[in-house]
Amino acid sequence: MAAEPEFRKVVIFGVGLIGGSFALALKAAGQVEEVVGFGRSLGSLKQAVDLGVIDRMGVNAGQEVSDADLVLLATPVAQMPEIMARIAPYLSERTLLTDGGSTKADVVAAARATLGGAVGRFVPAHPIAGAENSGAAAARADLYREKKVVLTPLAENAVLDVARVRSAWEWCGAQIHELTPEAHDRVFAAVSHLPHLLSFALVHDLAVREDRDLFFSFAASGFRDFTRIAASHPEMWRDICLANRVALLEELDRYRAQLDELRDALQRSDGARLERIFDVARTARRAWGETPPQRLPD
Amino acid sequence: MAAEPEFRKVVIFGVGLIGGSFALALKAAGQVEEVVGFGRSLGSLKQAVDLGVIDRMGVNAGQEVSDADLVLLATPVAQMPEIMARIAPYLSERTLLTDGGSTKADVVAAARATLGGAVGRFVPAHPIAGAENSGAAAARADLYREKKVVLTPLAENAVLDVARVRSAWEWCGAQIHELTPEAHDRVFAAVSHLPHLLSFALVHDLAVREDRDLFFSFAASGFRDFTRIAASHPEMWRDICLANRVALLEELDRYRAQLDELRDALQRSDGARLERIFDVARTARRAWGETPPQRLPD
Repeated sequence: MAAEPEFRKVVIFGVGLIGGSFALALKAAGQVEEVVGFGRSLGSLKQAVDLGVIDRMGVNAGQEVSDADLVLLATPVAQMPEIMARIAPYLSERTLLTDGGSTKADVVAAARATLGGAVGRFVPAHPIAGAENSGAAAARADLYREKKVVLTPLAENAVLDVARVRSAWEWCGAQIHELTPEAHDRVFAAVSHLPHLLSFALVHDLAVREDRDLFFSFAASGFRDFTRIAASHPEMWRDICLANRVALLEELDRYRAQLDELRDALQRSDGARLERIFDVARTARRAWGETPPQRLPD
Repeated sequence: MAAEPEFRKVVIFGVGLIGGSFALALKAAGQVEEVVGFGRSLGSLKQAVDLGVIDRMGVNAGQEVSDADLVLLATPVAQMPEIMARIAPYLSERTLLTDGGSTKADVVAAARATLGGAVGRFVPAHPIAGAENSGAAAARADLYREKKVVLTPLAENAVLDVARVRSAWEWCGAQIHELTPEAHDRVFAAVSHLPHLLSFALVHDLAVREDRDLFFSFAASGFRDFTRIAASHPEMWRDICLANRVALLEELDRYRAQLDELRDALQRSDGARLERIFDVARTARRAWGETPPQRLPD
């Protein structure tokens, strides 16, 4: 006899790559009975039903969440406060919440401002998994397999509730890490948000030149790698930059100081200083590149 | 009956990836009778002979170049002036020269300062082909196939000499483009040298932090692409930065102004401006990424 699924009903707001893959993964693990989806576009929701990503489209959000075991917010972060405010009055004592946002301090602030007493049942999460494509059609049951998911539990969370949200992401195959929301945002400002900003900046700077075709025609593989993330979604990255504005400004200023130092070395033709900086970078990059991907425990 | 090879004797200084692949490509095309190699390390030269990359090691550079049809300088650019000065007195009227340096104005200046009358037979070149690995063991006959080679002919060059050097690179399978040395350096400062500097700077900035492990442990695929070029060779990139210092400083200052603009938009929470910049960059990056690789004419 099959074991009972962990969750009877899961409600997902935003049935795209992140939300859809969460649904498929829980279904593949046999850990959910019913997935109800909400979204901005009727067409996408219908497609998600057709593809078996969700079992049905929701109509009344308050009614659907009132008897849900778990709610996942998987919309762009800028839309989360409004959804939280809309569902807050209907959340019952048994309903846990988590999210898939790329920034955490702003989502936590929104939760504290809108969820009232239910904030204790919201366990924020950031799955470190992306893909070239987006939308429900790109969703895959294995998107989170052996990928990191960062939980940023709140002081208000009960230990058992954190464990239950953790188990949901673990059923998706993810490796769970915990950080404070502030540490999360500081780390991702440095290793993700800033590189995106820098890559957008380089391509923009070329694209606005009159003789841009000359430049682009000689760009090669190093440029290709460096600028791959400049093909990312402008609206999504606008929101991430704004949501993590304070930490990103701090990282940007650190980086500008680093560029000033390189500029100074170059200006003075100080080859030894340039080489020292390049060498530290190369050693660190190689050491990082060789780190074997972490495995799930058996 | 096989056609006569284009070159009876080719002398190569620096038998690594660039020089070795040039030798193998001309051999594969049946366009060279004998390749003589010079280099700093006896071990590498022996390996190049063992691998059939060169036919023999040279001993006396002056004597070897005196009856060569073509000399290729494929050392780091910083070593070229000394080699040019050493061989200049022995170059005959029939010996053409080319190089494989990543910067051109500095190589041209060195040629004008050292080669005397022979400068007219020096046709500078920059093959846009690299690989993860270096050294003679990494050399491949097809390294230049359908890759761009930029020639930067000099006012002193005879048309027929440019055509002959061009044909050597064409025998390697390359697509030939021509730029002035100054335009070359400006273009590559923007699309190659600056991105390397920016990537080194990002990794260095993380690597010097006490809590660097925390940051590196959450770095993901975007970071991987952006920083791949930060694993490049420090000494080589020191030399390129110094050799192309003026154009690189200009590009770096443009870029810093671009970052100042982004910082200002972020500081003011000006989402519309951020999104506009990201959108221009994404559109340009996608258009470039979709450009089909140029084909060789049949």
